[in-house]
Amino acid sequence: MTDELNPVLDHLRNDSAGALDRLFDFLRIPSVSADPAYKAGVARAADWVCDQLRSAGLNAAVRPTAGHPMVVAKHEGPPGYDGPRLLYYGHYDVQPADPIDLWKSGAFEPVLIDGPRGKRIVARGACDDKGQVMSFIEAFRAWIKVHGTLPCAVTILLEGEEESGSESLEPFLEANKIDLKADACVVSDTGMWDIETPAITTNLRGLVYVEITIHGPNKDLHSGLYGGAVPNPINVLTSILSSLHDEKRRITLPGFYDDVKEVPTRIQEQRANLGFDDAEFLGSVGLTNSYGEADRSTVERTWSRPTCDINGIYGGYMGKGAKTVIASHATAKVSFRLVADQDPHKILKTLRAFVTAKLPKDCRAEITEFGVNRAFQVPDGSAFLAAAERALGRVYGRNAVLIGSGGSIPAVGAIQRILGAPALLMGFGLDDDCVHSPNEKFEVGCFDGAKKSHAALLAEVGRMRL
Amino acid sequence: MTDELNPVLDHLRNDSAGALDRLFDFLRIPSVSADPAYKAGVARAADWVCDQLRSAGLNAAVRPTAGHPMVVAKHEGPPGYDGPRLLYYGHYDVQPADPIDLWKSGAFEPVLIDGPRGKRIVARGACDDKGQVMSFIEAFRAWIKVHGTLPCAVTILLEGEEESGSESLEPFLEANKIDLKADACVVSDTGMWDIETPAITTNLRGLVYVEITIHGPNKDLHSGLYGGAVPNPINVLTSILSSLHDEKRRITLPGFYDDVKEVPTRIQEQRANLGFDDAEFLGSVGLTNSYGEADRSTVERTWSRPTCDINGIYGGYMGKGAKTVIASHATAKVSFRLVADQDPHKILKTLRAFVTAKLPKDCRAEITEFGVNRAFQVPDGSAFLAAAERALGRVYGRNAVLIGSGGSIPAVGAIQRILGAPALLMGFGLDDDCVHSPNEKFEVGCFDGAKKSHAALLAEVGRMRL
Repeated sequence: MTDELNPVLDHLRNDSAGALDRLFDFLRIPSVSADPAYKAGVARAADWVCDQLRSAGLNAAVRPTAGHPMVVAKHEGPPGYDGPRLLYYGHYDVQPADPIDLWKSGAFEPVLIDGPRGKRIVARGACDDKGQVMSFIEAFRAWIKVHGTLPCAVTILLEGEEESGSESLEPFLEANKIDLKADACVVSDTGMWDIETPAITTNLRGLVYVEITIHGPNKDLHSGLYGGAVPNPINVLTSILSSLHDEKRRITLPGFYDDVKEVPTRIQEQRANLGFDDAEFLGSVGLTNSYGEADRSTVERTWSRPTCDINGIYGGYMGKGAKTVIASHATAKVSFRLVADQDPHKILKTLRAFVTAKLPKDCRAEITEFGVNRAFQVPDGSAFLAAAERALGRVYGRNAVLIGSGGSIPAVGAIQRILGAPALLMGFGLDDDCVHSPNEKFEVGCFDGAKKSHAALLAEVGRMRL
Repeated sequence: MTDELNPVLDHLRNDSAGALDRLFDFLRIPSVSADPAYKAGVARAADWVCDQLRSAGLNAAVRPTAGHPMVVAKHEGPPGYDGPRLLYYGHYDVQPADPIDLWKSGAFEPVLIDGPRGKRIVARGACDDKGQVMSFIEAFRAWIKVHGTLPCAVTILLEGEEESGSESLEPFLEANKIDLKADACVVSDTGMWDIETPAITTNLRGLVYVEITIHGPNKDLHSGLYGGAVPNPINVLTSILSSLHDEKRRITLPGFYDDVKEVPTRIQEQRANLGFDDAEFLGSVGLTNSYGEADRSTVERTWSRPTCDINGIYGGYMGKGAKTVIASHATAKVSFRLVADQDPHKILKTLRAFVTAKLPKDCRAEITEFGVNRAFQVPDGSAFLAAAERALGRVYGRNAVLIGSGGSIPAVGAIQRILGAPALLMGFGLDDDCVHSPNEKFEVGCFDGAKKSHAALLAEVGRMRL
């Protein structure tokens, strides 16, 4: 089998200039999905990437949605193949380029410049996600060029609304759940540990986000005349919110930790030895001390422990100086980051009961839900995880680290829930890639490693049927 | 002595139409101090009221300040008088009339209309404070008309900036502290218990008002990437604010209650039997239960117990929907209502230490002070209080109730502090007078009672020298 992969890797090396040219063409298309002014650019990017999949040797089509189109492609693997099918998810749309005047070169005029770690590609979407999408398309192209086929079956699903809310994704998945069926979903939209060390993101946190408004008196009151004898909605709100944490900064909702699953021991041990640099992580935002749940490291606190943050709060007098008012209501935006296997709906229910129980008489809480998102954790002993680890080990000559991410990727949850395909998050970005910021870049070294890694993963998955 | 007062009361009764005419003239002058467009009106009101004092028989002058002028008048009492001197404080400026379209008649076109408790005067300033000011001027006029003199020495100080911040008051008091020296200060700007029951306000709460900003990370952060490992300034702020109260809703600042003086037993007992209507007080603002410091009545909670209210709060995302942000800072406006003998400066110092001690590492608190104000409480056994009680008892045929007020009257504190004159708050407004609102009114019955009560108070104080 190594024999099959080596000529593919050779081809990728020899065609690296061609792959760069193709990526540059992609980057020149301003596919900003959030801005209606770029609607034609988004459509052009869909057509362009569909053509790339076809020219690589896959069956591909642009499929309309209520929003921007989906690009769907398929390859059935070698003749008679009956092993696993991988679904590749990515997106061809990009973030807006603003603030435009902070770019050193045109956001949609890609350039190759020298950096401390070799050449880098600078353009909007270089890393997120056009560069990463092209890395697997180039792997497909090389496999088919060299061997006339892919070693396993693949489906590709590229959306054009990832940067603007993915509104069409779930309906499309629901409508095409049989057609898009797969055994695992490869997502290449995350990062490496560093430029020499590949990484697989084995867990993502989920999210529950609510807005809580406490209503008290039916109008704003003078704090001199009423203060001390009426419930002040801001006092009530701060009291309830602060009671969500105990002294160890653990969350006090009853049963909140009952379903919390610790990350597997092997991954825990690896993470403990990662040498995560607290000083750098915190220093970049002006802090020197990690602050969170007692007896947990920064890595645990951000990657694999649940949290509760107040994301916004407002009420009463917010102008300059003093006004002696008791507001009739006060509002907070509150979110919980969840970890496997916490049930967002159970937590919402507990939260509602918790808030209600703490209300003084005459006060009322209005709780608005802004969507929920389950946490993701790679199943212990996943064969696809093992295949990806072998592929990355082969290409980089060192073990991939199994990292977590404190954020959420809504598509990962939707694909897992609707298609039943567990995610394999194998990404090649670096922390300093400036995704969503001016001067976004993608290291050529990362692009090359990504192409090879995807080629090697295909080989590993092709072998899984044996 | 009764002989001296009776003809004065008779004269007031006989001249009631004249007094109403004069008050109407005063009310027609639009002396809105907050609005520069009414500057001429404010000046005209000063001149007009100065003329009234002169025509009543006092020495009076309009005295310039950096803002609107003061009107100062004096009478030395009967020949050879060496008893106490009363300082009458009031104001000739009024609140703006907005919202103007809610007035049923012109704000500066006074009318006499029928109400459930007899005739009432409707106009801006009818009660606050032109009607009350004219009530003591008419008492002076009647005394001098009947007896050629007042029975005691008086000084009158009328300011024109009470409704717009009283900026010139303290400098004027400081500059004229010898000239304005008095033994007690009569303030007629508060209310009665009901139209048949006179009241003396024997205590006012003081105030400490601060703005607290908690600073954490040096920029707004993504709550997925950082949440759980960094101090969230909104979480920190709510936690500190909620710790200002204990479970009995008492304030937890160390030593906060050390200097709290209970109201004298006689007044406490009277208040307990007042029949204060909780249901009406709370029902008018949509509440049914008094909520505050444990084991205290609503009357105690609002009139004579210290409180802490959050008057405003803001931080993070305040728009529609969800944003997963950790704010770099969050702010609250916090005020403490104080009672005698709490020292505002001591409380500010304690508060600073309290907040600072609760800050996580890397967080910083910025505390801005917006002025302080001591509480006021009539000294136990005050001879002036006793004189006022006798005067009101005489006029109304029933005992005055000794009420408190949860608000602050800054002038009372300034006069007491700078001139050393303790206040005697004898007011004739009713709760439904709509002061500061459209259709402000003053009952003719209240006006008549006020004139007589001031006449009787002068008699009582004149007798104190004997």
